[in-house]
Amino acid sequence: MTGWVAIAGLGPGAEALVTPEVTATLAEATDVVGYIPYVARVAERPGLTLHASDNRVELDRARHALEMAAGGRRVVVVSSGDPGVFAMAAAVFEALEAGAPEWRDLDIRVLPGITAMLAAAARAGAPLGHDFCAINLSDNLKPWALIEKRLRLAAEADFAMAFYNPRSKARPEGFARVLELLREACGDDRPVIFARAVSTPEERLTVVPLTEARPEMADMRTVVLVGSSLTRVLRDGPRPLVYTPRSAPE
Amino acid sequence: MTGWVAIAGLGPGAEALVTPEVTATLAEATDVVGYIPYVARVAERPGLTLHASDNRVELDRARHALEMAAGGRRVVVVSSGDPGVFAMAAAVFEALEAGAPEWRDLDIRVLPGITAMLAAAARAGAPLGHDFCAINLSDNLKPWALIEKRLRLAAEADFAMAFYNPRSKARPEGFARVLELLREACGDDRPVIFARAVSTPEERLTVVPLTEARPEMADMRTVVLVGSSLTRVLRDGPRPLVYTPRSAPE
Repeated sequence: MTGWVAIAGLGPGAEALVTPEVTATLAEATDVVGYIPYVARVAERPGLTLHASDNRVELDRARHALEMAAGGRRVVVVSSGDPGVFAMAAAVFEALEAGAPEWRDLDIRVLPGITAMLAAAARAGAPLGHDFCAINLSDNLKPWALIEKRLRLAAEADFAMAFYNPRSKARPEGFARVLELLREACGDDRPVIFARAVSTPEERLTVVPLTEARPEMADMRTVVLVGSSLTRVLRDGPRPLVYTPRSAPE
Repeated sequence: MTGWVAIAGLGPGAEALVTPEVTATLAEATDVVGYIPYVARVAERPGLTLHASDNRVELDRARHALEMAAGGRRVVVVSSGDPGVFAMAAAVFEALEAGAPEWRDLDIRVLPGITAMLAAAARAGAPLGHDFCAINLSDNLKPWALIEKRLRLAAEADFAMAFYNPRSKARPEGFARVLELLREACGDDRPVIFARAVSTPEERLTVVPLTEARPEMADMRTVVLVGSSLTRVLRDGPRPLVYTPRSAPE
């Protein structure tokens, strides 16, 4: 049996947002590896072993997946969203780089999924309809100063922005600092979208001007979008419409 | 009959990358509106009218969709990729903003899809595995100076970058200037990925260091990804593996 690893994106939560490619690949797998709540989304069946692990053990999980594939297993590493956006794909390649040389010849595929910022943007209208950036606000793996530097430069570039992991338990004050920095750099009335658990029963969408944005509006399941200088709110309330036009003036 | 508009992303090309949500919504539509090659991807059936139009008439198409929905039709506006990323969603909201006030009460949904940069990133490994930005290199709707400004700031922020519409027929010299600017700002050895028509039979993936990147490696169907200073190439050749680690050093 020839083993392989597929690193698959399950999308933001709803089954209707899982691609047929991912569904078909899961049907061929012998093993599924991932963080507990994502593995819980995969149906059990005979011949399939589920390996659920806790958060913060991404590298162990990646090594385990590569070892099993090297031994002939057909392994799917599940991520939420898109595996290539602040998710498991980079962790698997880090394990590959540091691991056994023969792992580099393995059949490894990344299967894209609907990433949280695009699910959130779709729900809100089209806030990322022009040039934008995506920043992970967690400082677990990078210095805080780099986050601040990127925020300042992104504001100067007038990008719309998407923030993943806005509030970590370890550093709750970080996101307050981010909002403060953005108010200094962008002014007060920039639309900010807090999109929590989009496409799940716990979905909640809040649109406020930057001046009213508060750190506690975000939690670990929230992605935050901040408009560019051109982003506007066409409709407020429970069905908000926020968009960034395709044109920028001369 | 209550009309609605759904702005749906068909993904980069393969049917296996169309979400079940989009497939189900197309099955309920009375009308499909879009650019000729995207409408061609929708199967004909009794009760469904296909309205295919040429490129560069996005606003006409958007108005037409909104008019039909206001008249009670169930309209799907199809985009390739994700409709919120340099595609039809912003155009529909521009038409909405400029159009009849009653349009603002319409049932309008955006259905996310797999956008080109994430399909390309998945094929190449995980080049967007850390903070990144997405820039439309076309200067049809924005001044060229803004594109250059954003490129310089993105390089200073050390973002990985994804470029849509790298080469327009109207301005072929623009992309040559982009590569020159990036070489000045990033040095010569940054990995550059040219990903053409990913997931279609015409797919072609090329990875070169920045110093070897040439404008003619991109065409209208190509998305271009440029690594950050930390992006590395784990495997060259026909099955390249390029990734950006999750960590940045202190």
